[in-house]
Amino acid sequence: MRQGISVGEAWDCIRDFCRPLPGETLPLFDALGRCLTEPVVSTRQLPPAACSAMDGYAVRPGDLAGATASSPVRLPVAFEVAAGAQSARSLQAGEVARIFTGAAVPAGAEAVVRQEDTQHEGGHVRIEICPPEGENIRAAGEDMEIGDSVLSAGTLIGPAQTGVLASLGRSRVAVHRRPRVAILSGGDELVEIDGDVSGGRIVASNAYMLWAACRALGAEPYSLGIAADRPESVEAQFRAALSADCIVSTAGVSVGDHDHVRPVLEKLGCQLEFWGVRMKPGYPLAFGRFQAKPGSGEGAGPLVFGLPGNPVSASVCFEQFVRPALRLMMGRQDLYRPLLTARVVDGLRKKPGRLHFVRVTLEQSGGEWIARSTGNQSSGVMTSMTQAHGLLIFPEEASELAPGATALVQVLDEGLFDPTSPGF
Amino acid sequence: MRQGISVGEAWDCIRDFCRPLPGETLPLFDALGRCLTEPVVSTRQLPPAACSAMDGYAVRPGDLAGATASSPVRLPVAFEVAAGAQSARSLQAGEVARIFTGAAVPAGAEAVVRQEDTQHEGGHVRIEICPPEGENIRAAGEDMEIGDSVLSAGTLIGPAQTGVLASLGRSRVAVHRRPRVAILSGGDELVEIDGDVSGGRIVASNAYMLWAACRALGAEPYSLGIAADRPESVEAQFRAALSADCIVSTAGVSVGDHDHVRPVLEKLGCQLEFWGVRMKPGYPLAFGRFQAKPGSGEGAGPLVFGLPGNPVSASVCFEQFVRPALRLMMGRQDLYRPLLTARVVDGLRKKPGRLHFVRVTLEQSGGEWIARSTGNQSSGVMTSMTQAHGLLIFPEEASELAPGATALVQVLDEGLFDPTSPGF
Repeated sequence: MRQGISVGEAWDCIRDFCRPLPGETLPLFDALGRCLTEPVVSTRQLPPAACSAMDGYAVRPGDLAGATASSPVRLPVAFEVAAGAQSARSLQAGEVARIFTGAAVPAGAEAVVRQEDTQHEGGHVRIEICPPEGENIRAAGEDMEIGDSVLSAGTLIGPAQTGVLASLGRSRVAVHRRPRVAILSGGDELVEIDGDVSGGRIVASNAYMLWAACRALGAEPYSLGIAADRPESVEAQFRAALSADCIVSTAGVSVGDHDHVRPVLEKLGCQLEFWGVRMKPGYPLAFGRFQAKPGSGEGAGPLVFGLPGNPVSASVCFEQFVRPALRLMMGRQDLYRPLLTARVVDGLRKKPGRLHFVRVTLEQSGGEWIARSTGNQSSGVMTSMTQAHGLLIFPEEASELAPGATALVQVLDEGLFDPTSPGF
Repeated sequence: MRQGISVGEAWDCIRDFCRPLPGETLPLFDALGRCLTEPVVSTRQLPPAACSAMDGYAVRPGDLAGATASSPVRLPVAFEVAAGAQSARSLQAGEVARIFTGAAVPAGAEAVVRQEDTQHEGGHVRIEICPPEGENIRAAGEDMEIGDSVLSAGTLIGPAQTGVLASLGRSRVAVHRRPRVAILSGGDELVEIDGDVSGGRIVASNAYMLWAACRALGAEPYSLGIAADRPESVEAQFRAALSADCIVSTAGVSVGDHDHVRPVLEKLGCQLEFWGVRMKPGYPLAFGRFQAKPGSGEGAGPLVFGLPGNPVSASVCFEQFVRPALRLMMGRQDLYRPLLTARVVDGLRKKPGRLHFVRVTLEQSGGEWIARSTGNQSSGVMTSMTQAHGLLIFPEEASELAPGATALVQVLDEGLFDPTSPGF
């Protein structure tokens, strides 16, 4: 086990043990937000035939030479094609067909004139323009031809992808499984949300925060409650978690005498990869892995993150390590939070030796981003995380960011880039 | 009813009829992604007592003057305080107490020395530093005092907010209701996803796309299936939708003879506000509203969006009008997609008179964003929406964006800003 490694070393280590989870075949309605395990090739031509993009009249432009609003051409409406109907006959010279959006264009027709450019008169229509060939006609296969690669493996399924898959009749799709994340709390001072907080007890709020963080990114969290500060209680909780893909413990893995997590993990066969990361908040982070599912003797067992107990430390460690690991397991290719360069108007100081993630607010001013500390950077001040737009990266060996210097900021606030106007 | 209005006029009209939906009280676990209807004021002091931020020893710094690694001070360990326990006695001069993270600091102690800076020897400890007063102690109330405003009304509940609410024991919270969105399809050419597509029939893929778009933004969509091209079928479908907060019809509201939607809406008492928006794709958009819930005689009835039938038109209209309307109803303050200014390297041309939303890809190059058309801008090419990173706003009266000109782009791809590195 390595100890006191850098943030970059920690993430490199974790990433090496992460793999996209196997696929499962789901109804399309359940696949939103998942990533395809295999490419999707079109099995249909869409549209299935040349069809009208408008309500209007199918015409042969040769009949309409010189037609204008002041000198329209009057032609007989020979027949009608409704949407969903295929035309029984073809269009002859000197006639037009009434046609509706989505209806198959009859043979012989080479354009559609929209209704707004016509005047209907009994069985005839006066047409006021001469359309170019193909006008308002969607060619067969314009969207997809049979055999087209329409979605690549790894594609995240959003609304447009859902529409395309529906068009192809794909009511079931193969997507990466969501990681099941067991969330463990431990400590005699902790109670559940409805518990009695007299005598200095506090709610195990980290478990709730982490549950929400897992849900927000599309994983499948479940809480295993609060273990007492006794080895047998901690062991029972970890045993119950072994079927997860990922175990996130907020019990802390520390050097303290009362820490039962590390001996329990070792007893259960967890290979601890590192303890302690040169960062603030969040130094006492542990990461390990089980070699195999218990009893199976093969395959990878759950990854284990022992997060620090202080709420901000737990949250920052989750952001840096657990979130990208879970996204990787979900088959996502975009693992990280957006980054921007911001000017640190007030400057920042620290001792070298640890990378600091500084909670900052962000605002745009004169074409650049301005970062300001949210104030108290104590790792106990969870309310500061509700105010922070991002985490400013204050590099390990740096001791000062002078007023006006710039630094990279990881953007946590998913609405930060949302404007107050739609742009039109 | 107004006709042929501008995109800005259309949105202004819709926004005037949108209100945040009333609140409902939900278990905290169901409130993720919702907005608070009322502010949250702290009812607890957190932490409830001064407590240790580290595993180590509670000390009186006056006892440790001059302590260093080479000249440590040796003191007796008088007692121990575990997390969750309150100290039974106070710390006297010349003694230290063993303490663990989260444990209440005993009276008399003014700092905590972390375990790493000590050496334990039987009932004594050698301490190698002299900490400043308050070191490694989290003050009582550092995070929240009773009466603090911790979350304002309208706050979107994310992981950090969930943690704060849990800390306060708020197992139930009042949040804006999610809009229920009835999705209606209509047309004899349409079948459900598993339907028979012979004879030119196609899947009603718009309904699937719109369902996913509603779900992705946190609304509660349900599909009412496909109405036949008969007035009684369309009417039955709209009647079934009247209990929704919002009706999204992909049947289209058009000038065509086969359009039964408009007469049905009028028969049912819908006030149509406008038909036709000067945009491309998406001109034949209708918007209306029911005055009241059916039978209730009071309150607002559902908003009605009659989207164009072409899939890209439906998608673009949803983005411009339905998405921000639903977000407003959910109590969101950030209604719009991110905007960026991009350089149009290849230039674009169109006729003046309609605002074009051009599907573009976006990439960063030399510190600026480059926008390129996804190619075929036909409103039938749904696959282009799976490739588009954004919608470029080509203003109504413009006829040319010269090569190298810049334009605003609405960003659709939620991963566009996600970097390939974490930044540390």
